[in-house]
Amino acid sequence: MRALILEGNQIRVDEHFPDPKPLTGEAVIRPLLMGICSTDIELCLGYMDFSGVLGHEFVGIVESVADKSDKAWIGKRVVGTINCVCGECDMCQRGLSEHCQTRTVLGIANRSGCFAERFCLPVRNLLQVPDSVDNDHAVFTEPLAAAFQILRQLSVENRPFVTVLGDGRLGLLCAQVLTQLNGTVRLIGKHSEKMDRCEKWGVKHRLLSDVGLRADQDIVVDCTGSADGFEMAMKMVRPRGKLVLKTTVANSKPIDLSPLVINEIQVIGSRCGPFPQALSALKADTVDVLSLISRRMKLVDGVEALRVVKQPGMIKVLLEP
Amino acid sequence: MRALILEGNQIRVDEHFPDPKPLTGEAVIRPLLMGICSTDIELCLGYMDFSGVLGHEFVGIVESVADKSDKAWIGKRVVGTINCVCGECDMCQRGLSEHCQTRTVLGIANRSGCFAERFCLPVRNLLQVPDSVDNDHAVFTEPLAAAFQILRQLSVENRPFVTVLGDGRLGLLCAQVLTQLNGTVRLIGKHSEKMDRCEKWGVKHRLLSDVGLRADQDIVVDCTGSADGFEMAMKMVRPRGKLVLKTTVANSKPIDLSPLVINEIQVIGSRCGPFPQALSALKADTVDVLSLISRRMKLVDGVEALRVVKQPGMIKVLLEP
Repeated sequence: MRALILEGNQIRVDEHFPDPKPLTGEAVIRPLLMGICSTDIELCLGYMDFSGVLGHEFVGIVESVADKSDKAWIGKRVVGTINCVCGECDMCQRGLSEHCQTRTVLGIANRSGCFAERFCLPVRNLLQVPDSVDNDHAVFTEPLAAAFQILRQLSVENRPFVTVLGDGRLGLLCAQVLTQLNGTVRLIGKHSEKMDRCEKWGVKHRLLSDVGLRADQDIVVDCTGSADGFEMAMKMVRPRGKLVLKTTVANSKPIDLSPLVINEIQVIGSRCGPFPQALSALKADTVDVLSLISRRMKLVDGVEALRVVKQPGMIKVLLEP
Repeated sequence: MRALILEGNQIRVDEHFPDPKPLTGEAVIRPLLMGICSTDIELCLGYMDFSGVLGHEFVGIVESVADKSDKAWIGKRVVGTINCVCGECDMCQRGLSEHCQTRTVLGIANRSGCFAERFCLPVRNLLQVPDSVDNDHAVFTEPLAAAFQILRQLSVENRPFVTVLGDGRLGLLCAQVLTQLNGTVRLIGKHSEKMDRCEKWGVKHRLLSDVGLRADQDIVVDCTGSADGFEMAMKMVRPRGKLVLKTTVANSKPIDLSPLVINEIQVIGSRCGPFPQALSALKADTVDVLSLISRRMKLVDGVEALRVVKQPGMIKVLLEP
């Protein structure tokens, strides 16, 4: 079958990649639509030392299952959580299964991803997509869930002043979700052509070059994926405020962490989130994802797609089978 | 009067430093005993760009006051909080006066410190020391309060596994205070001769070289003041665990913050703490401070004292007038 492969720092489309073989408890899924995420780009730069089929954002059809008892899943249109867990380790027992000590992660760690004609996931990772949620919406479930994770981790009093730093794919989703805190949400980025769409969401937006670094924000969400962004976030958050760190990147410069101590800032690392909440929001149409779609390309052009997604102005690039 | 002065990177004892003049609301205090803190050492290395009289840990006698209405303070034995605040800015109005936007900080920021024959503090910063708490104990109120601040900032379930990293002055106080969480407290450092005293406190201790970096601690308190310590702390704390950052130091190397995101770690910056709680603990004798006293020296030998405190095995060095 066709698959988009990362080996070393090389990406290529393999037309003869072996068909996936589901283990017990797993389903074989045929993706209908896939999304490219910044993590995919980081993986290509060496993050996590990943080798194999890329991709973790998808909506697809269950084609087959390993166990007869799961056959009701066949033919269902699904999305799927990306952490495949043991259910038995300390973390799983504590209800922290996203942090399972022996987890594999779809297209990120020790598990082939979804940028292929077929791939496997445990059926317990799957959620059926409501008929009223089309593929263009459903493919955003994973990153939207990651944005909702912030709401799960924050306890907020009053009406907070919130700044989202970074106008990329994730920043634009986080800014929308954070309007649910009933505060004032501001997105700061470098590309006014990306941020224009904020106006219809009730989100203020400012160019980074126009913003002063006053320590007056109750919550700052860093979606920049850069050491510079984190330093800026430390300067924008008020004393005893909260800094949500949403993007993973190995930093390339020394960071002075003393503002965290002096201003008693709380940093909250935030990763994967609740799929049911994301699907509900897509069904209720309370989050705008369609305006984030910049380009649709074919899986066979996946190498080119990973180049295109880095071009200025690009937000979400979708892959069709 | 005599005072220990930092100017540029030079420390010296000035025998003819001008006597302090109290502003309205302030008292003139004559220190009876003073403590040297790691922050004093950092200031000498350029931290905060401070110039002037060093020192912020003391117990002393109120010698005079600026306002008649405060004359009841004269002759009282006191300790004092170190942040001098306006009471009117946004932070003060929100009850976050330790983070007052125009604060001065005793011997740290825009205010002459206590390593002198006399110095000033607002009377509202003062707390009278109970008769049963002698000077050797009372002089630890400020750093002990900083340790208690951790308890104020943490919400803890069950009996946590706690690691304190760093066997210096602050680490040894934090380890003792954290036993109040009813969990298992472990101190990790490089000096077994400092850590020996942990046994009588019910605190386990391990040499850094003997410890594996398993991500299994619910709470890790970093008192190392180094980028290496922070990186180690990130590796020791469990997924969704808490990392308390207690020491301020400008880092000199790049730090990879991605473990914070991947393991959804919460970092809590922690600074000054509650004096009443610290004084109560000293009165109730629930914290051992006497065994931390390594050396007593005279203010006139302050330059030498700041050298001695950096020697191996030294914990708290006290200054007498």
